[in-house]
Amino acid sequence: MISIVKNKIHFYGLRFATLNSQLSTINYQLSTKKMPSITIWNEFVHERSNSDYGSMCRQHYPNGIHRHLAEKLAPALPEARIRTASLDEPANGLPDDVLNSTDVLVWWGHAAHDKVPDDLVDRIHTRILAGMGLVALHSAHMSKIFRRVCGTSCMLRWRDGGRERVWVVDPMHPIVKGVPETFAIDETEMYGEPFGLPPDAHPVFMSWYEGGNVFRSGVTLNRGAGKVFYFSPGHETFPIYHDANVLKVIANGLRWVSPETPVGANPLPYAVDEQTPYEK
Amino acid sequence: MISIVKNKIHFYGLRFATLNSQLSTINYQLSTKKMPSITIWNEFVHERSNSDYGSMCRQHYPNGIHRHLAEKLAPALPEARIRTASLDEPANGLPDDVLNSTDVLVWWGHAAHDKVPDDLVDRIHTRILAGMGLVALHSAHMSKIFRRVCGTSCMLRWRDGGRERVWVVDPMHPIVKGVPETFAIDETEMYGEPFGLPPDAHPVFMSWYEGGNVFRSGVTLNRGAGKVFYFSPGHETFPIYHDANVLKVIANGLRWVSPETPVGANPLPYAVDEQTPYEK
Amino acid sequence: MISIVKNKIHFYGLRFATLNSQLSTINYQLSTKKMPSITIWNEFVHERSNSDYGSMCRQHYPNGIHRHLAEKLAPALPEARIRTASLDEPANGLPDDVLNSTDVLVWWGHAAHDKVPDDLVDRIHTRILAGMGLVALHSAHMSKIFRRVCGTSCMLRWRDGGRERVWVVDPMHPIVKGVPETFAIDETEMYGEPFGLPPDAHPVFMSWYEGGNVFRSGVTLNRGAGKVFYFSPGHETFPIYHDANVLKVIANGLRWVSPETPVGANPLPYAVDEQTPYEK
Amino acid sequence: MISIVKNKIHFYGLRFATLNSQLSTINYQLSTKKMPSITIWNEFVHERSNSDYGSMCRQHYPNGIHRHLAEKLAPALPEARIRTASLDEPANGLPDDVLNSTDVLVWWGHAAHDKVPDDLVDRIHTRILAGMGLVALHSAHMSKIFRRVCGTSCMLRWRDGGRERVWVVDPMHPIVKGVPETFAIDETEMYGEPFGLPPDAHPVFMSWYEGGNVFRSGVTLNRGAGKVFYFSPGHETFPIYHDANVLKVIANGLRWVSPETPVGANPLPYAVDEQTPYEK
Repeated sequence: MISIVKNKIHFYGLRFATLNSQLSTINYQLSTKKMPSITIWNEFVHERSNSDYGSMCRQHYPNGIHRHLAEKLAPALPEARIRTASLDEPANGLPDDVLNSTDVLVWWGHAAHDKVPDDLVDRIHTRILAGMGLVALHSAHMSKIFRRVCGTSCMLRWRDGGRERVWVVDPMHPIVKGVPETFAIDETEMYGEPFGLPPDAHPVFMSWYEGGNVFRSGVTLNRGAGKVFYFSPGHETFPIYHDANVLKVIANGLRWVSPETPVGANPLPYAVDEQTPYEK
Repeated sequence: MISIVKNKIHFYGLRFATLNSQLSTINYQLSTKKMPSITIWNEFVHERSNSDYGSMCRQHYPNGIHRHLAEKLAPALPEARIRTASLDEPANGLPDDVLNSTDVLVWWGHAAHDKVPDDLVDRIHTRILAGMGLVALHSAHMSKIFRRVCGTSCMLRWRDGGRERVWVVDPMHPIVKGVPETFAIDETEMYGEPFGLPPDAHPVFMSWYEGGNVFRSGVTLNRGAGKVFYFSPGHETFPIYHDANVLKVIANGLRWVSPETPVGANPLPYAVDEQTPYEK
Repeated sequence: MISIVKNKIHFYGLRFATLNSQLSTINYQLSTKKMPSITIWNEFVHERSNSDYGSMCRQHYPNGIHRHLAEKLAPALPEARIRTASLDEPANGLPDDVLNSTDVLVWWGHAAHDKVPDDLVDRIHTRILAGMGLVALHSAHMSKIFRRVCGTSCMLRWRDGGRERVWVVDPMHPIVKGVPETFAIDETEMYGEPFGLPPDAHPVFMSWYEGGNVFRSGVTLNRGAGKVFYFSPGHETFPIYHDANVLKVIANGLRWVSPETPVGANPLPYAVDEQTPYEK
Repeated sequence: MISIVKNKIHFYGLRFATLNSQLSTINYQLSTKKMPSITIWNEFVHERSNSDYGSMCRQHYPNGIHRHLAEKLAPALPEARIRTASLDEPANGLPDDVLNSTDVLVWWGHAAHDKVPDDLVDRIHTRILAGMGLVALHSAHMSKIFRRVCGTSCMLRWRDGGRERVWVVDPMHPIVKGVPETFAIDETEMYGEPFGLPPDAHPVFMSWYEGGNVFRSGVTLNRGAGKVFYFSPGHETFPIYHDANVLKVIANGLRWVSPETPVGANPLPYAVDEQTPYEK
């Protein structure tokens, strides 16, 4: 009787209808190279803006934050292959061949979160669950992909200007290796609590601001086989990505989120046919 | 200088562009009634299927799982107002006036997860973050809204038939009040590990299956101001929602996810203007 | 064969030797009163010190911090029975009849952590696991009982003096009900990160200090059937326990850690005889 | 004024009285060798018992479980230095020079948990917080050191005999590398839920038992700079530590808990003198 029912289910395709397109197209392509492949994605909007604001950004990041980070991080990650990508490129910079050969994705976005297509977010999310690391920087707290992995609002307070002091709050974490227990950033954008994170967002850094605010400025998450690191210091109009401590944290973050096994090599928690019991 | 920059930002609308439609429309409407308003949503597909399979479902749930649950749960929740809704109704059963007056949403879906519009999922998600409780039942593990709050694949193994034994694994949890420490379900659909959950999914129940599988069959999550409970026992072709223990767990779950303060009354973690520092 | 082996085990008493005295004496005594019974324990050392320091403490807390809190909290908890206890009393203030009728224990200690006998810590720990709530205040972060439930160092940085600003970081938590999203304390003792907590310590409050430090100043934990709340603001030489916001938080904390069912009523996760399988 | 107060505090020694002996003697000795030093500790009671029960144990582990594991695990950990220790040795097998040069401690105990001195538990706990890994096996769930790091009862159900099926529930975890998604153990001791663990105990394995029970049979914890892995399969009278899958899991566990930096190299979350503010 059950087996007949099963056939009918299959006939109607009801079972498989429960798998939406995102999940049914999970890519098992392995990135077997031991050298992690890092793609630094930037919406690349502010730095090209024909405005005083754009000029301010170009002063610190003339070729865009993505290319700046690629250049600055390369010496600390000699074993990695680093590429850059941006929203204006074909397939928004992340066509299948790029995304499916990326082990670690860095995300910088601010003004154009809404321009990132939902199906690209689906593809990135799927690859994270399969093992790709994600490093979300600064205003990427509101990016679609970071909010997707969090499942929460990811909202926060903000205010321009003033001094920030970053504290290591988990001295055991690999991400703090070689980072001083506290360091200051002279001019920053304040990001303040409450920060709409899920309860398992693990604080590695917390920040103090001269205006009276506090913030969980560095947090880690695990989602499926993928690791996620969010780090708030960094802004388009301040030279924060020139700061040695900030670059050290980001390099450590890239290393920490790197998959230990090739992306997609882990067995996915699903089996399409499980008709034979394991025990009788 | 900063203030000029600020004006420019505002002029270009860059700041506010970072808020997508989902978040900018957060509904502050308070449901001030102390009596929680429960809406039991069902895709209502199987029970109306013109097939042998449909007949099997109607044998146990002639008016649909949603109406069955509403009737069976009412005596245990005398203080609640219980409504039902289904996918085929206008606005998929959850127009603004219904959703915005719902304190607790029960979700049952299986064959039609993909038919639920993304913007409805956005609206439900926003209301959960503002305090609405969610009880996701059985195959709702793959619903868009449950996967949205989890941020993971939510995938699992499955197999039809056989005996299930449910265990309380957190004897302190309010959801287990009055529930025996273990109880059996004679005929069930096996849902097995690995279950693609986020690390903070707190196990309240775990299940044993005669075929050799195990499963975290009852888990809780906190997302923003909202509480979420997932409970797997229950299936369209088995009379599991007639089982007294199962109904007791679901009633407890409805009570546990009920918001303590009116939905939307909690301050959201965001401030659009935070220009005045708290400390000088 | 197995049964023979079992007998031998029992003969040698090896099984039961694995239960140490703490666990074998778990008290099942129920506190059936709905009115929670709160005991505020204070080491009561500073306030009785014959020194300038003692004078400073007596200026704010002439009868001891425990009696001060009992008086100030009573109006906010009309349904509670509040008692005080101190280290110098018989059985260190917590003989069996007191501890076994306590639903919520408040702990204040600083200079005499080492004077609290280990077997008293065992008894308190056991009762927490059975459902008693614990509110650990200020320097109780280093108390034996708080470190027992944490399993970590619970160490932190400290510095006298200066201004503290407390932030609500979990606006959904019952402990923040009626508490402003941020409030200041003019003169405080700085407690700074890194705070040696376990990863599941959930931050409800975070503090900013004028000297540049940050701190998770209010965290919750669940241990067995018991809830734990740690709150740092408060000091023997500052009138912080006269502050309306601080008192509000503590009153909320007392309510939140109160057991929902009588202490000891939850089934303990152990069974001395489990020889009959549940399934054949 | 503050400084005078500070002097008085120091005069009375009140501050430093808050540091108990355990914490004030934290050992900063670095184990700079890259080769992790593993010490396998066994109470070594059952295997030497002059009884039928002892004979049964010796049949599988003639030289003790510790020496058996050392021999079986060595090929999988060629980079490690493996030592054994037991309760009957001087200083209970863990004098300062042994413990302070141990990077990973394996613990096997059952009948003699109470014989392990509290000050040894303090020393082990301190070293774990400073970075030493701990692998607690089988009945070590009730050992003083495992219960110390958990802060909970760690109690469970048990029953002799029957078949166990182990499931990988976190396919991404390094501990499952090379381990089949499920494997069976023909004859085991049942350990069943509810298992009195803290909420952050992360399940990596779950077990099914033919008698109808389920269990979180492999869990990880982070405490300070140290990692902890508990794995239940294994028993003194069954040849479970001869099973290739079980040995693979334990070897992976030893590798996972190994400190990434030398034990004691991480800055401890405490500063005895913090009088100079970081910000003015």
